[in-house]
Amino acid sequence: MSISNSKIPEPALRRLPWYLSYVKLLKGRGETYVSSTRIADKIDVSATQIAKDLSYVNISGKTRVGYDIDELIHVLESFLGFTKQHKAVVFGVGSLGAALLSDSGLEQFGLKIIAGFDVDDSVVNESTHTIPVYHSNEFIERNKGIKAEIGILAVPSGVAQTVSNYMVRGGIKAIWNFTPFRVRVSEDVVLQNTSLYAHLAVMFNRLNDSKIQKFKNSK
Amino acid sequence: MSISNSKIPEPALRRLPWYLSYVKLLKGRGETYVSSTRIADKIDVSATQIAKDLSYVNISGKTRVGYDIDELIHVLESFLGFTKQHKAVVFGVGSLGAALLSDSGLEQFGLKIIAGFDVDDSVVNESTHTIPVYHSNEFIERNKGIKAEIGILAVPSGVAQTVSNYMVRGGIKAIWNFTPFRVRVSEDVVLQNTSLYAHLAVMFNRLNDSKIQKFKNSK
Repeated sequence: MSISNSKIPEPALRRLPWYLSYVKLLKGRGETYVSSTRIADKIDVSATQIAKDLSYVNISGKTRVGYDIDELIHVLESFLGFTKQHKAVVFGVGSLGAALLSDSGLEQFGLKIIAGFDVDDSVVNESTHTIPVYHSNEFIERNKGIKAEIGILAVPSGVAQTVSNYMVRGGIKAIWNFTPFRVRVSEDVVLQNTSLYAHLAVMFNRLNDSKIQKFKNSK
Repeated sequence: MSISNSKIPEPALRRLPWYLSYVKLLKGRGETYVSSTRIADKIDVSATQIAKDLSYVNISGKTRVGYDIDELIHVLESFLGFTKQHKAVVFGVGSLGAALLSDSGLEQFGLKIIAGFDVDDSVVNESTHTIPVYHSNEFIERNKGIKAEIGILAVPSGVAQTVSNYMVRGGIKAIWNFTPFRVRVSEDVVLQNTSLYAHLAVMFNRLNDSKIQKFKNSK
């Protein structure tokens, strides 16, 4: 019985890239099979949970030896969407946006950034990036050709909502929001928030807590 | 009674940057007071939850008018650690690492990247970045002067664990892990994972689901 078509819960989905990363490492070392127990040894997740997570993707392990590593990599990359090419545009070519434009590493994971859009004439049409940067005004017309479905949002917070609405009008189906602003989209648009600033805040807070703890312990 | 010293739960902590972002926007529009109901209108969080989250930071609203915006911004930025300067180094100046080195936007949020470290001679000591890049071998010696406590991990997965251990030996107290690899650290080291690839996977998956949904609805 295959349950690969049932909807995978988000926490399980988010763990799959960890397993992928680890089995790719094993492949690099020339290994051919891996068990969920072996993965559990290296990653902070129980073997039972790993086996359950992997039951959502279309793969079955062999008794004793476990999963075929090549097959597992192939199935995971394909399930995660990393083998397809998803076209994306970046809105806001400031420091973060420019950084994302130049991060060619994302392409290996299925994200192909086609163009950047900005309202600032000093970045529009400049040639320092390998990817063209156009004026935001041109987006709706240009996206008829580009056909990007993913819009990366890296504009100032004050215009985040307006730019999101504009992207959706131009055909964007998923917004990857890097701003600290909570944009709202209609139900048929996918919204993924990646707030580097929230992660920073959590890290600073824990760092501070661990210092307080050490101070207390030293007394 | 102040409860500002009680430990804030992580979900609340992660919401604070959203409130900060929104009230800064209001300040830019010349407004002076904001109520939790008003914030709730714009952000997908209930007014009760917002008031509760804000009870962890040292601020109290006034009946009817709400919070003083200037005070709220000041208190939030300080609570979140954005007003302090936290020194950081980046390990791995590949596409993502180089992107982070050039993202000066992080500095506004209290993260000051002092140097990059890499083993690849073609990036070490090159001058295209505004921040110096040294050979990884030099880290322990150089960090005696730099005194960075935060280490940003942007190396290939295969060396993520080794490099983490090395960073900790050189005085790093918090690791911001951008690799898809699950590194392990001892209890006294703070670990913050930011897996762009996991976020990508979730976004691709939802995008796919919403297409299936539309296809079903159209039948």
